[in-house]
Amino acid sequence: MIKVGIVGGTGYTGVELLRILSQHSEVSIQAITSRKEMGMAVAELFPSLRGRIALKFCDPADAKLDKCDLVFFATPNGIAMQQTRVLLDAGVRVIDLAADFRIKDVSGWEHWYGMSHACPDLVAEAVYGLPEINRDKIKVARLVANPGCYPTAVQLGFLPLIEAGIVDTDHLIADVKSGVSGAGRNAEVHTLFAEASDNFKAYSVPGHRHLIEIKQGLSNITASLVGLTFVPHLTPMIRGIHATLYARLTADVDIQALYENRYANEPFLDVLPTGSHPETRSVRGSNFCRIAVHRPQGGDTVVVLTVTDNLVKGAAGQAVQNMNLMFELPETLGIDHIAQLP
Amino acid sequence: MIKVGIVGGTGYTGVELLRILSQHSEVSIQAITSRKEMGMAVAELFPSLRGRIALKFCDPADAKLDKCDLVFFATPNGIAMQQTRVLLDAGVRVIDLAADFRIKDVSGWEHWYGMSHACPDLVAEAVYGLPEINRDKIKVARLVANPGCYPTAVQLGFLPLIEAGIVDTDHLIADVKSGVSGAGRNAEVHTLFAEASDNFKAYSVPGHRHLIEIKQGLSNITASLVGLTFVPHLTPMIRGIHATLYARLTADVDIQALYENRYANEPFLDVLPTGSHPETRSVRGSNFCRIAVHRPQGGDTVVVLTVTDNLVKGAAGQAVQNMNLMFELPETLGIDHIAQLP
Amino acid sequence: MIKVGIVGGTGYTGVELLRILSQHSEVSIQAITSRKEMGMAVAELFPSLRGRIALKFCDPADAKLDKCDLVFFATPNGIAMQQTRVLLDAGVRVIDLAADFRIKDVSGWEHWYGMSHACPDLVAEAVYGLPEINRDKIKVARLVANPGCYPTAVQLGFLPLIEAGIVDTDHLIADVKSGVSGAGRNAEVHTLFAEASDNFKAYSVPGHRHLIEIKQGLSNITASLVGLTFVPHLTPMIRGIHATLYARLTADVDIQALYENRYANEPFLDVLPTGSHPETRSVRGSNFCRIAVHRPQGGDTVVVLTVTDNLVKGAAGQAVQNMNLMFELPETLGIDHIAQLP
Amino acid sequence: MIKVGIVGGTGYTGVELLRILSQHSEVSIQAITSRKEMGMAVAELFPSLRGRIALKFCDPADAKLDKCDLVFFATPNGIAMQQTRVLLDAGVRVIDLAADFRIKDVSGWEHWYGMSHACPDLVAEAVYGLPEINRDKIKVARLVANPGCYPTAVQLGFLPLIEAGIVDTDHLIADVKSGVSGAGRNAEVHTLFAEASDNFKAYSVPGHRHLIEIKQGLSNITASLVGLTFVPHLTPMIRGIHATLYARLTADVDIQALYENRYANEPFLDVLPTGSHPETRSVRGSNFCRIAVHRPQGGDTVVVLTVTDNLVKGAAGQAVQNMNLMFELPETLGIDHIAQLP
Repeated sequence: MIKVGIVGGTGYTGVELLRILSQHSEVSIQAITSRKEMGMAVAELFPSLRGRIALKFCDPADAKLDKCDLVFFATPNGIAMQQTRVLLDAGVRVIDLAADFRIKDVSGWEHWYGMSHACPDLVAEAVYGLPEINRDKIKVARLVANPGCYPTAVQLGFLPLIEAGIVDTDHLIADVKSGVSGAGRNAEVHTLFAEASDNFKAYSVPGHRHLIEIKQGLSNITASLVGLTFVPHLTPMIRGIHATLYARLTADVDIQALYENRYANEPFLDVLPTGSHPETRSVRGSNFCRIAVHRPQGGDTVVVLTVTDNLVKGAAGQAVQNMNLMFELPETLGIDHIAQLP
Repeated sequence: MIKVGIVGGTGYTGVELLRILSQHSEVSIQAITSRKEMGMAVAELFPSLRGRIALKFCDPADAKLDKCDLVFFATPNGIAMQQTRVLLDAGVRVIDLAADFRIKDVSGWEHWYGMSHACPDLVAEAVYGLPEINRDKIKVARLVANPGCYPTAVQLGFLPLIEAGIVDTDHLIADVKSGVSGAGRNAEVHTLFAEASDNFKAYSVPGHRHLIEIKQGLSNITASLVGLTFVPHLTPMIRGIHATLYARLTADVDIQALYENRYANEPFLDVLPTGSHPETRSVRGSNFCRIAVHRPQGGDTVVVLTVTDNLVKGAAGQAVQNMNLMFELPETLGIDHIAQLP
Repeated sequence: MIKVGIVGGTGYTGVELLRILSQHSEVSIQAITSRKEMGMAVAELFPSLRGRIALKFCDPADAKLDKCDLVFFATPNGIAMQQTRVLLDAGVRVIDLAADFRIKDVSGWEHWYGMSHACPDLVAEAVYGLPEINRDKIKVARLVANPGCYPTAVQLGFLPLIEAGIVDTDHLIADVKSGVSGAGRNAEVHTLFAEASDNFKAYSVPGHRHLIEIKQGLSNITASLVGLTFVPHLTPMIRGIHATLYARLTADVDIQALYENRYANEPFLDVLPTGSHPETRSVRGSNFCRIAVHRPQGGDTVVVLTVTDNLVKGAAGQAVQNMNLMFELPETLGIDHIAQLP
Repeated sequence: MIKVGIVGGTGYTGVELLRILSQHSEVSIQAITSRKEMGMAVAELFPSLRGRIALKFCDPADAKLDKCDLVFFATPNGIAMQQTRVLLDAGVRVIDLAADFRIKDVSGWEHWYGMSHACPDLVAEAVYGLPEINRDKIKVARLVANPGCYPTAVQLGFLPLIEAGIVDTDHLIADVKSGVSGAGRNAEVHTLFAEASDNFKAYSVPGHRHLIEIKQGLSNITASLVGLTFVPHLTPMIRGIHATLYARLTADVDIQALYENRYANEPFLDVLPTGSHPETRSVRGSNFCRIAVHRPQGGDTVVVLTVTDNLVKGAAGQAVQNMNLMFELPETLGIDHIAQLP
C-alpha cells in the first residue's frame, strides 16, 4: 500500500482526488490537511464520502507528511512551492495539482501568476505529468507537475498533428469550453448558479494563464515556438472540457489514421470513428480523453474535437495516473471508472 | 461468474445496468437484446461504454437467454410478463425492472397500466425487491419485481414511522421531486431541454401509477390500508429523487433514534445527524439512500427527507443488490460506487 | 411622471426593478444609490441595461431622495428602517422590498432577523403590500412593506380556502420550491453553479424567516392562529417559485369555483382549468400568479399549486403594482410583460 | 393597424413571434394556422399567453390569409414556397422565417435541403432580411427571407472586417455555440433534457445547412467567394447564440473604432468597450446583438465575439424588425424589450 498525504483538499480537485483514492486498492490515505477546515470530518464537508472516509482535516503540523510515500498538493497556486523541498529531502515524492512547477520559464510564470517563485531549481527538476508525452520520465520522477485542465485537452488534441509536422504551427487556434467546476469551489459572483446558468461567454481573451503552459508543451514537441490563439469559454455544465482546435494543413495525410496510430497504445485516449462528434458526458467522471478529427469539405483546415472531464483527466484522475506510473502499478488501476450517462 | 442476460437495455435504466454490471467482478454479460437496435454495438449507442462492452444488441431469438443464470428485464411495462414463464421454466431466475410483477392486486394493476395481465399466477409468486423489507424472501426468489423509483424513496422514508405505529396513517403526504431521467429516454416534447430546463411543475396530481405501489407497500407494513396523498414533480436535473414526507405523530418518540436503529445494519441506508438536509447529488451515481428526520418547532408533524438516485437505488443499482442477494454474493458487491460530487 | 429613487439596487431584486421601471411610461428614475458600487454605471454592472439606463450608482448623500415622490428600498434587511422616517417626514412615500416592515410582532421580527428594530411605530403604520388582500389600504399608504417571495406564493394559494373557512387551519402544509435567484446575488458556496446545478435539497426545515410572515398573513384572514409546516427547497432553476399546498377539508365545496370566484377580478391571478398543473416558466418574467386546485381521488385533502416569478410577483413586479395603486395609475401599467417561453 | 396572419406557429419561433406581436401596438393578429393543432386555443398550448391571445389554431383553408397585409411563415422548410405565390398575387406581403427563400443558388439550396424548389423565380425576387445590410431593399420588398440564427450572428460579426477588406477571407473560422431551443420544439432524443443537460458537443462539422447561407452573405460583401470553416455546437442553455470568430488581419487598423463606426447608427447593434466579453444572457429575450473585438497579444489574429438571442434577433425579433421596415413603422417598435437578467 502506498501511504498518501493530501495537502489542501477542500476544493473540487480535492474531493475528486478523495473519491478516486478512497476506492484505489493500493492506496492508504494517511492524512489530509486544511488550516481552514481543521478538525472537521471530511465527510461532513462532502457528504458523498460518508461511510467511506473517516479522516478529519488536520493541521499541516500534525500531518506527519514526511512519513508518507507520496504527497498530493491540491492547493491554490503558490503553496506547493513553499513545502515541496522539505518533503523531497525526506524522501517523499510529490505531485502538485496546481501550477507551481509546470512552467520552465520562471520569469514567465512569475508574470502570469503574480508572485515570486520560491524554488526555481525544483521547477527545473519537475517532470510535466502528461503521460502521453512524458511517461518514462514520470516513472522515475521525484516531483511531478500535474498539467492544467485546458492544457491537457488542447495538447492531446494537437499532439499528433505537431509531431507529424503537417500543420502551420504559427497560427493554431484553440476554442475551448469548460464546465463551471473548472473555476473551483470559491464563492464568486460570476460562477453563481443564477449568473452562469442559461448563459454562455468567453473570458480572458486578451490572455489566460494556461496559454503559456500550452505553448510550452506544443513548442517542446515541434522544437520551435508555436503561435496559438486560445479562447476559453464558460459553459453552463458542472464538469467537462470540449476543445475545438483548428490548424491549417501543410501536407495531405490521412489524419484519421495518424491519430489512431499515435494513440493506439494509450489506455485513456480514444479516437472515435471518422465523422464523429464526442460529447463531454461520454467522459464525465472518467479519465478518458475522446477525440475526433475532421477536415470539413476536404479543405486545408483540420478540426480536432477533444473532450475530457476537467476534474479527472484534467486534474485528479491524471494525478493518480501519474502516481500509478511512479509506483509501478498498472497505469489504469483505480481510474477505470465508466462515465456516468445520462 | 453469473451468466446474465438483459432484455431491453436501450433506455436509461439499461445503460445504467450496463455501467454497473460491466464493472461487477462476478458477472458475465452473455447477451443484450433489442429488436429496434438489433446489430448495433452497445458502445455505439452509448459511447460512455466504448472499450468496456463489446456486445451488440441482438435479436431476442438469438440471445439464448435460457442458458443464462439470470435475466434482467429493462423493458417497457408489459414485456416481461410475456417472456418470464418460459425463462423460469428453463431454470433461469428473473429480475423485472418494470412494473409487471409489482402489484398483487391484478385488477388494480390492469386499471392503472391499461392492459390485461398475462400471468397473474406469477404475480402471486413474485417477490417485491426492496431488500430493507424483503431480504430473506429475495434470497430464494425465482422472480423479483424491482421497485419503482418513487416507491423506493417514499417507502424507505415512511417505513420506520409506520412499523413503529406512531403516525396517523390515514393522512400521509408524499411530496416528491424527480430528475428528468425518470421519464426515460423516449422522445417527448415535455422532457425536451428547452421545456424542462429552468422550469418546475407538478404532474399527475389526480393520480399516478406509483400511488398504488406505494400504498400496497405501506399497507403491508401496517397491516391496514393507508391513506396517502402523492404529488410527483418534474425537476430540472438529470438524476435524483427527493422525497419530502409529512405525517402526524400520534405518540411522542425520539424519531432520530428510531431511524438510526431501524437502519443501523442496512448497508445502503444512511441516516444523517439531527438537523440535516440531504442533497440529491450526495447519492448521484450511488446506491445509497440518505435520510433526515425533522419535527419543526417541536410540533406534531414529522418531516422526513429522503434522497436517492432514481437510476441506481431507484432502478439498476437496487436490481443488482437483489441479484447479489439471490446469488449469495456480498450485498454491496459492484454497487459501492461513491457519488460523483460536484 | 412619478419621480422615483432606488436605494440599493445591485442585487437581483434591484436589476429586475430597473428592468421594469425603465420601461414604465409614468416613471422617471432620479437616482439609484450604492455605497459599494458608487460611481459605476448601472449598465456596466448589468449589461442587459446598456442603452436603457444612463445613471450611475451614487452616494446616498448625493441622491436627493427627499425630492422624489417615491423611494424603493432594494437593500438587505435592516437598512430601510434606518432611513425611512426622514423620507416620510419629507413627504416621500416608501416601498421596502426587504423585510423591515412586514412583521407586526416586533419582538418576533427581532428574534428571526437577529437585530433590534429601529422604528416600531412605523411597523405599526406600514401596510403589507399584498394587493389581493390590502388593495384599499395600499392606495393611501405612506409606507408599504412589500411581501417576501415565499409568503406571496403561499398566501395567495391558501387565501380562498381560509377565507371560506373550509379547511383545518391547525395543520396546513406548504412544500415550496424556489429558484436559486431567491438567494440573492451574494457570493456564497452553496449557490455556486457547481453546487446548485443538477441537485435538489430542502433547507431551513427547523425554521425559516418567512414562516412568521406567512403565519401572520394567514392568521389575519382567519382571525385565529394557524398551524403551518413550511418546507422550502432549493431548485436548479434561475427564477420561479412553485408552492404545493396541502390542507384538510372540513366541508364539501366546489373548490374550483371557489378559486375562480375569489380571483375573478384580480388582474394578476390566473386560476387554471380543473386538472391543470401550472409551470413556473409560464410566469417567468411576468407578474402573474397561476393557480390550480386538486382534490386527489376525491379525498379530504386539497392540493393547491401556485407558481410565481420570485423576482416579479415575488418582489419587483409586486412593488411596482403597489406603486401603481399608490399613485392612482392603472394597476397593470408597466408590469404586463408576457412570460418568456421557452 | 397591420393585419397579420401566421402560418405555423406551434414551434419556438412561433410562440416567440406571438409574444412579440401580441404586445406590438400596431399589429392585429387575424389568424394563426396549424393543421396539427387545429381547434386548440393558442393559450392552451402556450400557457404563457393565457389572457393575451384569444385565437385558436385554425385550418389554413379558413384563415383568410389573403385578407391580411402581411403573413409570417413560422413553418418547417418547404412550406412557404408552396403558399407564397398566391399570397403575393393577392397583394399580401410575406416574411418567411424558414429557409425557403434565403439561398439564391437554387441548386445549392436543393442539395442542402433535400427537396426541389417550387418557385425559383420568387427566390430571385426575395430580399434577404438582414437590416444591417439590406435595410432599403427590405422597406420595399414584397417577400423577405428572414435569416437563420447562426447566419445572423456570424455575418454581423464578420461584416465590418470584410467590408473594410482587412482580413484573409480565404480562411475564416466561425466557432458558434447555440442554445437548445435552436433545434426546435420537435420531440427528438438528442435534445432531451437528460441528453443535452450537463453536456457539450459539436455537431455537423462535415457540413451544416447554414454554411451555404453564411458564405453567400459574406461573399456578397466582398464580391468574391469566401472560405469559411463553420463549427456549430450544442450548449446546455435554452436561448442564446455565442459566435467566436477568427480571422487573420492583412492590415493594421483600429478594429475597435472600425466596429463602433460601422454600427454607430444601428439600433440593435451594441459594440462593447475594448476588453469586453459579451454574455448571451445580456440579450436573452431582446433583439440586440452585442459585439466585442479582440486582438490577443497584439498578434495578427482578430477574435470577434457576438451574442444574440436565437429566437429574437435570430428569428422572430428580426422578422418583426423587417415588418417595421416594410410598413414604415419605427424600426424598434415592439421589439425594444430589455433582456431578462438573471
